[in-house]
Amino acid sequence: MNRSLTLGADVGGTYVKYALGDDGEPGRWTGEVASDPASPAITLGRLAARIAELLPPGGRVGAAGLACAGIVDVEAGRLGRAPNLPGWEGADLAGQLRAAFPDAAIALSNDVNAALAGEARFGAGRGGRDLVMLALGTGVGGAVMIEGRLLVGHRFGAGEVGHMILDPVGPLCGCGNRGCLEAYAGSRGLLAAARRRAAAPDGSPGLRALVAARGETLTTRDLADLAARDPDAAALFREAGERLGQAVGNLLNVLDPDLVIIGGGVAAAGELLLGPCRVTAAAIVLCEAARATPIVPAQLGSAAAALGAAHLAAARLAGGTRETP
Amino acid sequence: MNRSLTLGADVGGTYVKYALGDDGEPGRWTGEVASDPASPAITLGRLAARIAELLPPGGRVGAAGLACAGIVDVEAGRLGRAPNLPGWEGADLAGQLRAAFPDAAIALSNDVNAALAGEARFGAGRGGRDLVMLALGTGVGGAVMIEGRLLVGHRFGAGEVGHMILDPVGPLCGCGNRGCLEAYAGSRGLLAAARRRAAAPDGSPGLRALVAARGETLTTRDLADLAARDPDAAALFREAGERLGQAVGNLLNVLDPDLVIIGGGVAAAGELLLGPCRVTAAAIVLCEAARATPIVPAQLGSAAAALGAAHLAAARLAGGTRETP
Repeated sequence: MNRSLTLGADVGGTYVKYALGDDGEPGRWTGEVASDPASPAITLGRLAARIAELLPPGGRVGAAGLACAGIVDVEAGRLGRAPNLPGWEGADLAGQLRAAFPDAAIALSNDVNAALAGEARFGAGRGGRDLVMLALGTGVGGAVMIEGRLLVGHRFGAGEVGHMILDPVGPLCGCGNRGCLEAYAGSRGLLAAARRRAAAPDGSPGLRALVAARGETLTTRDLADLAARDPDAAALFREAGERLGQAVGNLLNVLDPDLVIIGGGVAAAGELLLGPCRVTAAAIVLCEAARATPIVPAQLGSAAAALGAAHLAAARLAGGTRETP
Repeated sequence: MNRSLTLGADVGGTYVKYALGDDGEPGRWTGEVASDPASPAITLGRLAARIAELLPPGGRVGAAGLACAGIVDVEAGRLGRAPNLPGWEGADLAGQLRAAFPDAAIALSNDVNAALAGEARFGAGRGGRDLVMLALGTGVGGAVMIEGRLLVGHRFGAGEVGHMILDPVGPLCGCGNRGCLEAYAGSRGLLAAARRRAAAPDGSPGLRALVAARGETLTTRDLADLAARDPDAAALFREAGERLGQAVGNLLNVLDPDLVIIGGGVAAAGELLLGPCRVTAAAIVLCEAARATPIVPAQLGSAAAALGAAHLAAARLAGGTRETP
């Protein structure tokens, strides 16, 4: 027996999340190994060792997909700018992945592209061919699928929706510009807004108490919990949701996709964020039929990118183009 | 002899511009007939009569492309919302076009999509596969080409770049929202800004004199002529160019195309507008390699949509997909 399995790996600054399985059960084995932030070779060696332990008798990795945050040159197989993996910048990802899994068809992708491929195949985007995903984490990532193919861009710079400027005199973003979507709807931006609000003379006592109690450990989940009973905390999500809606509305006017998927940790706030987002987006869309475009939460959580990377590799093995899910 | 020629027609509220020719010379015969704003049948009948006069002995229309401003359902062959052609809304464009040119392969498209197809095949976008076009007219239209195919969108609403909101408290747009690109960089918006500036207590004497002299006949060309010697007039183009740059930078972050083409009458201001646009756009782009994406003027002027419509029809005749140039 020689059973070909598919592996997907999502490399973050701390962990590599993996999903090993087959078409029927792509996440049969899941877990994580520690990333070495300075060495793709050490990291992928660790991953290969773990996978070797998991493989059933006669099993082998027939396809291996790797997703990384950053600019991924999917043609040359190299990682470009990668703020979360500075020691990996310029790495020959394709070579490293081939070295770790020598018998596998391989596929590389940006992490949010992989997450969208996962949602498209197994999650919120099933059946869709034209999809947009926004991942609201510390920063805000994005991905676009057109006619079933992930858009990578001419210089692998597509999908950077987090840096759409929504107001040139808005809050400062980590990228150095002002008013990027990320500065409003990423957790860093939302937490900064919460601290500004708590420090204001008319900030609500509840928000002030929460910010003082949590200090640097404050999370958007804390804020979402408070929002049920505190108007200032609720207003933070409404404002972030309206800015998210401005970005989504702009994207609907440009791309008119089947639907828009909102994922990432900040999106766990659910309707607090998505409700205002939907209202704002619909008001922006020019094409009447497109105003009701569904704006839905992601379904696969933090497993999306590993599952998507696995799927992209399986598609490659099956003879598909480089990133066709 | 039976020579098959290709026709492209660009229907506006006043005129239908046409281009008749073949692959080597797509604009062999060009001209215009009057539009009947209430009747596609009368309009296309006029066009068919004119074309019959132009056809050389043995010539016939083998492919006919029609471009219309508005939401064009390229699958059902119907025109949706069309502010410039209100009497045509809901019209069976495909049926009317077939009735006028019964032997021709036909193709329908939105006018800016057709213009981009024209620029991609014959103009500023030659050789490009991933292109974005902005047409700065009275309003601002847009079009997106991905891997050589025009993006029409799930509900035929893609490419409405003019209604990207750049500042939710910006100037009022014709669509009812505030801060759309169109409100800054369409001629209606730019002329309104000029009149506001002229009415300001510190408005320049030159601008005030021009606005008073031209009244309702003021054009963006008048303003561009004045800008060479008047700082207020130059500032109007700089501000519009910076907003255009914000929109273009946002588009580069989402789509990362080969290049961006800027057309339409307002774009005749040239570097007055494109210079500030390039600086602003480059500062927004996250992917370093994409910061130098060319932002170039259109080359085909007002003939672009008719030439593009002809090309789309020729591609249809050759067996291409519905809008592949």
